[in-house]
Amino acid sequence: MKHGARNDIPAEVIEIKRGGVMAQVTVRLKGTDYRMSSVMTLDSLSELELKEGSEVHVLAKAVNVLLVKP
Amino acid sequence: MKHGARNDIPAEVIEIKRGGVMAQVTVRLKGTDYRMSSVMTLDSLSELELKEGSEVHVLAKAVNVLLVKP
Amino acid sequence: MKHGARNDIPAEVIEIKRGGVMAQVTVRLKGTDYRMSSVMTLDSLSELELKEGSEVHVLAKAVNVLLVKP
Amino acid sequence: MKHGARNDIPAEVIEIKRGGVMAQVTVRLKGTDYRMSSVMTLDSLSELELKEGSEVHVLAKAVNVLLVKP
Amino acid sequence: MKHGARNDIPAEVIEIKRGGVMAQVTVRLKGTDYRMSSVMTLDSLSELELKEGSEVHVLAKAVNVLLVKP
Amino acid sequence: MKHGARNDIPAEVIEIKRGGVMAQVTVRLKGTDYRMSSVMTLDSLSELELKEGSEVHVLAKAVNVLLVKP
Repeated sequence: MKHGARNDIPAEVIEIKRGGVMAQVTVRLKGTDYRMSSVMTLDSLSELELKEGSEVHVLAKAVNVLLVKP
Repeated sequence: MKHGARNDIPAEVIEIKRGGVMAQVTVRLKGTDYRMSSVMTLDSLSELELKEGSEVHVLAKAVNVLLVKP
Repeated sequence: MKHGARNDIPAEVIEIKRGGVMAQVTVRLKGTDYRMSSVMTLDSLSELELKEGSEVHVLAKAVNVLLVKP
Repeated sequence: MKHGARNDIPAEVIEIKRGGVMAQVTVRLKGTDYRMSSVMTLDSLSELELKEGSEVHVLAKAVNVLLVKP
Repeated sequence: MKHGARNDIPAEVIEIKRGGVMAQVTVRLKGTDYRMSSVMTLDSLSELELKEGSEVHVLAKAVNVLLVKP
Repeated sequence: MKHGARNDIPAEVIEIKRGGVMAQVTVRLKGTDYRMSSVMTLDSLSELELKEGSEVHVLAKAVNVLLVKP
């Protein structure tokens, strides 16, 4: 599959938290200690069949990425 | 500074492209070969005084991060 | 590929406008007269190799979809 | 009302799920079988007075629409 | 019109910058010196018929609003 | 800290609602009666140590700000 998102990084699911309609999935970028979180609906979570250890790709549209200076 | 974004990774600016009102800034995540792009206004670019080699942090709200399965 | 976006609709590219760093791609949802636009970087556009007539899928995270009442 | 979103499609609410602070509203695009979901706060849900069968318009900023190739 | 965005503030357009496909519209929130910018397509700009002095409302989905501590 | 968001307004937290994984934080823009809401994960909420009365800055990327005409 090809997509229009500039940012695509392999990662591994390390934690899943479930709420009433939303879930928070934390991943670790492959070969690093960097963590990122993704919030999605529980419906998306079950369609993706994610669990701890699942291999995923992290995608974010460039317009939604913010750069800050320390 | 503290912020409400779950995702915050140190990075280095490796390329800047300028358009009419927008700019695309590509960074490399520190200690990795992973690249991400951020699109911002030229105004933001000049306020941030970004140039190649600038050290930045990459921020994305968890709700704007998409996970895909290969 | 499986993804964490609730919204995924087949469409056909009907127009592409190119700017300095960004492009606007207008699609028609398959079997309808509904049109949607996607703004992406020129880099993404060329990676996707989009042109008029290309078949694509439209994706939007549910959190970025707004409902209004007439 | 006029708005700065490129994407505006009539739809009908077919399902509402409520969580602790968020709700997920699924709609069917008028005259089609395409479904889309919108996640909003419960406050927005009650201000909109949405229920199954409500007529709405679906809006998404073009920058938040992703195109993928099958 | 009713909408599912938690944030809706009256404002006045004070500056418009045009690029190749995108425009940046800066507004001042009514009765304040606070400024906000909105980036939209040139198509949206012309549909909205915005010019300096136009009265608008500023909308942002709560999920896209970030809070930071100084 | 410097950031690539065009919109940055001082505000005070006036209400916090907690759900299963998400929280909704309502703020009042300093010196005005304008309110805005931000939705974030509970993790972000606790990292920010927000409570009623906390002073914050409101940030939104210009691409996620929508202008509408009454």
